[in-house]
Amino acid sequence: MKKIQVDIKDALTGSLAGSLETLRPEGLSGLAKLTDGSGEGADFLGWVKLPSETSADLLDDINATAAALREKCDVVVAIGIGGSYLGAKAVIEALSNSFAAYEPAKTRVLFAGQNIGEDYLAELKDYLADKQFGIIVISKSGTTTEPAIAFRVLREQLEQQVGRKEAAARIVAVTDAKRGALRTLADTEGYKTYVIADNVGGRFSVLTPVGLLPIAVAGFDIKALVAGAAEMEAATLTGADSDALNYAITRNALYRDGKKIEILVNFNPKLHFVGEWWKQLYGESEGKDHKGIFPAAVDDTTDLHSMGQWIQDGERSIFETVLSVKTTDRELRIPRDESDLDGLNYIAGKRVDEVNKMAELRTRIAHVDGGVPNILVTLDDVKEDTLGQLIYFFEAACGISGYMLGVNPFNQPGVEAYKKNMFALLEKPGYEEATAAIRAKLK
Amino acid sequence: MKKIQVDIKDALTGSLAGSLETLRPEGLSGLAKLTDGSGEGADFLGWVKLPSETSADLLDDINATAAALREKCDVVVAIGIGGSYLGAKAVIEALSNSFAAYEPAKTRVLFAGQNIGEDYLAELKDYLADKQFGIIVISKSGTTTEPAIAFRVLREQLEQQVGRKEAAARIVAVTDAKRGALRTLADTEGYKTYVIADNVGGRFSVLTPVGLLPIAVAGFDIKALVAGAAEMEAATLTGADSDALNYAITRNALYRDGKKIEILVNFNPKLHFVGEWWKQLYGESEGKDHKGIFPAAVDDTTDLHSMGQWIQDGERSIFETVLSVKTTDRELRIPRDESDLDGLNYIAGKRVDEVNKMAELRTRIAHVDGGVPNILVTLDDVKEDTLGQLIYFFEAACGISGYMLGVNPFNQPGVEAYKKNMFALLEKPGYEEATAAIRAKLK
Repeated sequence: MKKIQVDIKDALTGSLAGSLETLRPEGLSGLAKLTDGSGEGADFLGWVKLPSETSADLLDDINATAAALREKCDVVVAIGIGGSYLGAKAVIEALSNSFAAYEPAKTRVLFAGQNIGEDYLAELKDYLADKQFGIIVISKSGTTTEPAIAFRVLREQLEQQVGRKEAAARIVAVTDAKRGALRTLADTEGYKTYVIADNVGGRFSVLTPVGLLPIAVAGFDIKALVAGAAEMEAATLTGADSDALNYAITRNALYRDGKKIEILVNFNPKLHFVGEWWKQLYGESEGKDHKGIFPAAVDDTTDLHSMGQWIQDGERSIFETVLSVKTTDRELRIPRDESDLDGLNYIAGKRVDEVNKMAELRTRIAHVDGGVPNILVTLDDVKEDTLGQLIYFFEAACGISGYMLGVNPFNQPGVEAYKKNMFALLEKPGYEEATAAIRAKLK
Repeated sequence: MKKIQVDIKDALTGSLAGSLETLRPEGLSGLAKLTDGSGEGADFLGWVKLPSETSADLLDDINATAAALREKCDVVVAIGIGGSYLGAKAVIEALSNSFAAYEPAKTRVLFAGQNIGEDYLAELKDYLADKQFGIIVISKSGTTTEPAIAFRVLREQLEQQVGRKEAAARIVAVTDAKRGALRTLADTEGYKTYVIADNVGGRFSVLTPVGLLPIAVAGFDIKALVAGAAEMEAATLTGADSDALNYAITRNALYRDGKKIEILVNFNPKLHFVGEWWKQLYGESEGKDHKGIFPAAVDDTTDLHSMGQWIQDGERSIFETVLSVKTTDRELRIPRDESDLDGLNYIAGKRVDEVNKMAELRTRIAHVDGGVPNILVTLDDVKEDTLGQLIYFFEAACGISGYMLGVNPFNQPGVEAYKKNMFALLEKPGYEEATAAIRAKLK
């Protein structure tokens, strides 16, 4: 069942009113490149049919691994960065109780290797010192600096706490099928492994074991997540009028009209990291050749009281894409108070979410009136299948949109350069020439 | 002791090389308006001399109140939004252990009223059901929708859990001296209160009881925080070459040169909410009259693997302001591993933070080379006095910068409109006309 609706009627107005039809051929050409592989970056289209082609056996295997980790571990640390972090983080946060961190948990999923914080890692070591913990280490090459450091530090600790053999039973590696430092290490130590396919880039990998294993360990239903994505895949690849196509067309029409910043807005704080995941997906796919929409995200109504002023009255160079969630999980009504000293009885009896929806409605009207085009993405709820649909919707639209922009949506030359320059600065063997060059520059 | 250094040499290059001198008169004029009150918004300059004029008695009183709350409560919920939320949140997160949420705590500070999440509030109620809790409610008027709802809901729960009398002993209100719904309620119920002065706007209020009380309850040293700010106040108000002045001049020079987005970058995840606080401070002060720099923030190196590509290769419309922290609290070295299967021995023995600093250095070089001007703000550490200096530095620079931009840095017409429209949509008595207008529009 379709659980997402996209409404662009407040985005393409005035001179842009006809854009959906004018630009449809371009959009369809972008869509075709996703399925026929005729565009740039065609080696990285493994995500396009991934949901429908994911076998039940793989999902059962991931669930079994997750169950084994949950059986042994109070805490499982997922080590990864970028696409090996944000997808799992986004889904887990969206599905978790807002105060889960403060409550006891059967098995808690924490993250490491997503930064190089000395305090962060030292404090994590302290926290783990009296815990039964396990590790999911996610890295295609095994040499990306951040996760490599975190893994070496935490692996040593785990081996000290439970011995090398038991540690090996609590470490799962998600890595390249054949090559790389992590593959070598995993095979030598006998870790359970999952494969990062060559044709799925990091920011498109949340529906592979990269994202699915941490999500399963956190106790969520990865079958429903993938099934939701598969539904959206079918709707997107077969339709000439899909939501993904319309979103891609709309944002390109706005960009060409001078709207340089897209703000992804949620009215549900649990979706904060969906915004972070989305920023990588679009920023890394489109930010190249000195072009691309700058992706930003806000959590409303929180940020109406911070970024709200700028959005209402600042430069007219922005548009918003609002994630609106139809139903909450819980029901809470504003109580009546006889004394009414706070003067709030006028909304007593209303559900809190009714007020939230009023804030959302009011904000959309005021921003559109103020010159901020608005795309509305309505989710029926925040459950696994809906999130699966949302993920695939954004992925597909991103591929189409990048092709419309005229870039290769599937490379990331700036990030690759960062990784290599890190090796040069750290004087890694094999990078002597680059090291000399950068040292000369620093003089 | 000055614990912050600001370096703009990688920001004003090429045609902008002389800007610091060219624009100094404008900057000094902005600075003068902060002290002589000759500019727009002069009714809201109470923050300018606040640090030096804050009495030891007030700080002692806040500390005593905090100690009383800590004595009684496992959890204290700070209810507020915008400036009544972000400052306290930023300081507390910066000073806390990264995994504090997962560990037992003497008294935990949680936040509410910073959103209208029905699930969030329902889940918070569940969490508090078996806790000894107290409330700090922060609202000038007492009628801002988000905190008003949260306070009514949680006050009812607290009164049910401990009785109305004991609840009154556990509730502290930070509000207007005389007027408003919260003042009336507090006086009627006999709550301890602190005053939000009329001449300090929300986004400049972190060094008033608005921010200081939650920070003190969390166990941090508010005297050091205010003393740090007072040092920066002295350096800023007396100097014609202060860091705040130079930062204000630099960002205006860049903006006039077409740099439309400023990205505040940290390389320490604990500073994430300093970025959120900064976004409100600058966005709400400058985003008006269809102008102003769009403020964004990233947490590096995390976001080098998401926004890094865009920053390196996207539109050349951005500049970065990097918060670099000289020293960590903890020491952690990368261990040596005899087998070296992960190939990481080339950095064995190095401190994790050395690698972080290399990443920072590399990123600054590559971004500057790639056309992203860079302002470097170096903090000696992340402690109370340094944060106090940083807060005042950003506040003063914001006032100067807003005057240089030609706006009133101290109003927020867009946010006031939002608050009023909320009342109209919610059909609050007294807003009938506005309600009718908005209903007509919605038809």
